[in-house]
Amino acid sequence: MKHTVLSVPERLEAFRNEMKAQGLDAYIIPTSDPHMSEYPASCWKYRKWISGFTGSAGTVVVTADKAGLWTDSRYFLQAETQLAGSGIDLYREKLPDTPSITDFLITHLKSGATVGYNASTYSIQDAASLSTEMKKHGIKTDGSKIIADAVWEDRPALPSGKVFEMPLEYAGTATPEKLSRIRECIGNAGADYTVLSALDEVAWTFNFRGSDVAYNPVAVGYALIGEERAVLFMDEKKLPAELKEKFEGYGIELLPYEELGIELKKLPANSRFLLDKANTNASIAESLPEGSVIITDISPANVLKSIKNDAELDGFRSAVLKDGIAMTRFFKWLEETMSRGEKVTELSAATKLKAYRAEQPLFLSESFAPISSYGPHGAVVHYSPTPETDTELRPDSLYLIDSGGQYLDGTTDITRTIALLPEPTDQMKSDFTATLRGTIDIAMARFPKGIRGCLLDAYARHALWDAGINYLHGTCHGIGHCLNVHEGPQSIRMEENPVKIQTGMVMSDEPAMYRAGEYGIRTENMIVVKDDIKTQFGEFLSFETITLCHIDTRLVDKSQMTAKEIDWLNNYHEEVYSALSPHLSEEERGWLRRKTLPI
Amino acid sequence: MKHTVLSVPERLEAFRNEMKAQGLDAYIIPTSDPHMSEYPASCWKYRKWISGFTGSAGTVVVTADKAGLWTDSRYFLQAETQLAGSGIDLYREKLPDTPSITDFLITHLKSGATVGYNASTYSIQDAASLSTEMKKHGIKTDGSKIIADAVWEDRPALPSGKVFEMPLEYAGTATPEKLSRIRECIGNAGADYTVLSALDEVAWTFNFRGSDVAYNPVAVGYALIGEERAVLFMDEKKLPAELKEKFEGYGIELLPYEELGIELKKLPANSRFLLDKANTNASIAESLPEGSVIITDISPANVLKSIKNDAELDGFRSAVLKDGIAMTRFFKWLEETMSRGEKVTELSAATKLKAYRAEQPLFLSESFAPISSYGPHGAVVHYSPTPETDTELRPDSLYLIDSGGQYLDGTTDITRTIALLPEPTDQMKSDFTATLRGTIDIAMARFPKGIRGCLLDAYARHALWDAGINYLHGTCHGIGHCLNVHEGPQSIRMEENPVKIQTGMVMSDEPAMYRAGEYGIRTENMIVVKDDIKTQFGEFLSFETITLCHIDTRLVDKSQMTAKEIDWLNNYHEEVYSALSPHLSEEERGWLRRKTLPI
Repeated sequence: MKHTVLSVPERLEAFRNEMKAQGLDAYIIPTSDPHMSEYPASCWKYRKWISGFTGSAGTVVVTADKAGLWTDSRYFLQAETQLAGSGIDLYREKLPDTPSITDFLITHLKSGATVGYNASTYSIQDAASLSTEMKKHGIKTDGSKIIADAVWEDRPALPSGKVFEMPLEYAGTATPEKLSRIRECIGNAGADYTVLSALDEVAWTFNFRGSDVAYNPVAVGYALIGEERAVLFMDEKKLPAELKEKFEGYGIELLPYEELGIELKKLPANSRFLLDKANTNASIAESLPEGSVIITDISPANVLKSIKNDAELDGFRSAVLKDGIAMTRFFKWLEETMSRGEKVTELSAATKLKAYRAEQPLFLSESFAPISSYGPHGAVVHYSPTPETDTELRPDSLYLIDSGGQYLDGTTDITRTIALLPEPTDQMKSDFTATLRGTIDIAMARFPKGIRGCLLDAYARHALWDAGINYLHGTCHGIGHCLNVHEGPQSIRMEENPVKIQTGMVMSDEPAMYRAGEYGIRTENMIVVKDDIKTQFGEFLSFETITLCHIDTRLVDKSQMTAKEIDWLNNYHEEVYSALSPHLSEEERGWLRRKTLPI
Repeated sequence: MKHTVLSVPERLEAFRNEMKAQGLDAYIIPTSDPHMSEYPASCWKYRKWISGFTGSAGTVVVTADKAGLWTDSRYFLQAETQLAGSGIDLYREKLPDTPSITDFLITHLKSGATVGYNASTYSIQDAASLSTEMKKHGIKTDGSKIIADAVWEDRPALPSGKVFEMPLEYAGTATPEKLSRIRECIGNAGADYTVLSALDEVAWTFNFRGSDVAYNPVAVGYALIGEERAVLFMDEKKLPAELKEKFEGYGIELLPYEELGIELKKLPANSRFLLDKANTNASIAESLPEGSVIITDISPANVLKSIKNDAELDGFRSAVLKDGIAMTRFFKWLEETMSRGEKVTELSAATKLKAYRAEQPLFLSESFAPISSYGPHGAVVHYSPTPETDTELRPDSLYLIDSGGQYLDGTTDITRTIALLPEPTDQMKSDFTATLRGTIDIAMARFPKGIRGCLLDAYARHALWDAGINYLHGTCHGIGHCLNVHEGPQSIRMEENPVKIQTGMVMSDEPAMYRAGEYGIRTENMIVVKDDIKTQFGEFLSFETITLCHIDTRLVDKSQMTAKEIDWLNNYHEEVYSALSPHLSEEERGWLRRKTLPI
């Protein structure tokens, strides 16, 4: 096999030739992988391969004589640079003059044309709406032609990372019990089977963790679960012998990863499948036996996984304690290093923090690429420093660091913003206080059982909105247990999400504000949903904040806070000091004491 | 014609005979009328006629040997009483053991059976889902057989109330301009026609008001609007000659009410109709010409109507001033009458308030049946006194009055809760203060342009939730301009509603709490959405509170409020006094001054 690396125009040419050979007039290449992962493995980075664009979101469309990349405002500058000379035009999403992909296809194709896409990179729902939209204009769609595989000259192999068993001590619930709960959900939905395609759902259900993808300890695989059967589709070389034996004992069948489609086709005709149409790839739907019915709902494993058991909650509490120790050492080191006038950059700071985390027991890896951002970089919402952008931290602005760890007993996600300058400006204090009030108001919320997360979002934004400020991302996302740092199905955000907030869910609490060209501010804690009081008006839930790390009180303007908010902050700091101090040196304790004094 | 009034069992027998004659195995009789009105005219009260049940919500299902009424918890007691001996079983909705109507039909019908309903009482959407559900069990549905009309022995005629022109001075926008805006919406949606079926949309578009229905100044009619045509389907005897002439001048065709279906069938085949499937009756969909496509969206007249023009807003401000004068006189009268030891009841109080309103210029009627409720009656959310329930107001509890007026220049809706006892209890004060804080926090809200109402609902509930209290109805509904006191499409409530809150919308602001067996508390003001500041974070909107009536400060516990909330209340009272006092007698002024002193 020849391994010459082609240029993007050469790839496009080869791609177009193959498109033509397979009778397609256009082809859509989204970012998704077959598992709808946030971080696709390299072998599925089709869109990056065809375009050279490395952002985390974007879709390429290729026709016989045009090619375009659609991406959002976070990536306009980066895409412009990376697409230069590629022959691919940049389509800036959500600008008034930018046509949608549908509009583009309608304009550039004639009735009777065919648009191709790889069904395994499209959700069932998106594939259906693409087909409906195109049909209106006499254009056909075909999800069965996988052009890229034929022309990608050095496509990486499927990842072959090893898998290890998640000890029951940390997982809390054994696989047979999880399978039986999933089966109960399948039955309640009136279905016969479900397919787990999200990698974290597979890892959670079968109590293993993997190493196929950066930051997310998952392994490439699928599962098929029915009343009588549980089949794990995974390269058996990944699995340790003891785990294979355990699976055998549980009656779990192990089949090669590639055989999901074959196995689905063998199931009885007219079977009923419980599948989440928005998060299951369309090639799975196309592999179902004749007469199958899809009952669409959130995957049962996704729902069950989001409600943490006691062992998982204990693990989270242990993980945030370790994280708090690392964060305290990091901020002390940062303050002292900078005050000695030694150079610290965004990257060197992140490296130091990782080293402090790595000293802690059961540390596996970071849970995402840290957002270590000085001054104006803090205002770039998804900024993550690279050697090209790395900037020195200077004592004249704010520093925001959003980071987390994967520990065997839990996953963490924490953001703190600190003043690097001795005297923060009034605007900084007022911005910081309004944002912090959001974090605190979510933390203190009591709310009726059964409500959707979006109803609480205004708690996070109230003080910011009052100041004429808003942020455009969500406030709270679910956090996996030694799994993906972003998980569903729940959320607290402005967008509608029908999922109810339930006791045992673990989430982030991260209101924010971004002053373009100046700085970004975010104080992010982890919260656990717990039962609160029961009154004649019903049952109420509330949150427990579990993150243990001081908040920079030099940035707090007490006069803008309510008495309850001030109490919360002072109590929180007392709790942080009590929990962390037994694990710190005397010097560290003294330093943390000063950082946690009441305001 | 014989006019013997039959008993419910006799009606059921006649109904079943007709059902059988027409080949139906079951029949569903909902509360809706062909216009999906909140208050159906008597001729459409099919469900009340067949069952004797007079509640505002409920559905009757009749089979050959069973009959049931499904209604919600507000009406369990009333329905039990009214259904006694009728042969109709009560099905209590939302109780765990209550089967749904679908379940009931599946259980009692065999595959091959046919369920009838009157398509004009079912929305397109509900008819479609009924058909889908029944099909799954081999049961057919038929919306074309109108059983009740054949057997209803003394069915009232269609209402023939007179219509008057809404002066342009109050309407603000002339009909040709409204038609052209509706046509723009039709064009933007890619449609050819729309049908207005909601009576308030018809009245708004054609700038008339009617008298066919209690409280809502509307008239029975439909409209068909396309690029070239505007047809009003209405009994021409309703219309004054001058208005008919005006319509003729505008090129508006006038056809009999009954001819909508005939006219729709005459339209060109393959026409595209912009219809709100959730709010348009299914018989309209069935009358569309061959090959028609329905583009579903909120009716353009509904959206346009919700955004008030300057003349309408000026009218609202005039109406709330008149309402405030009436409310002040009423509360002064109530206080003085009760302190003299004279008997006042819920009904006599409501009558007095109506009389004060009626003294005001341009008063037409009340805008709904007043909720005049003493003590425990206040905790019954939809209570409205009747001679049977009428209770004397005694100086030992709270009194809640929710009422409103239809004035030619605007519609009002206001609730106040006052202490009848000299020393309210701590619980009363704490309940009242938490509820009032909700009203104030909505009133003070600043929020980004473009958000959905449900995101603001937590502002209304924050203080209540903190106290372990909740209320199960919405917080803010739209209010028509000399039209329905409840109108859409916007709302602020826990349920998802995709409609964005926009400048010019007029709404209620009515957080509440209901302590069963003790009292209910609600402070309701009218608010207008207005432009607020524009910052680097975007455009913001806020509310202007326009209702002018004092709030009982004896029930306010200042220590539970924030400084901003206290300021709001004191400023509001200053505004109420300044606005009302020039219109009051010296004695009334003095009384109001005392009621509006700062806390």
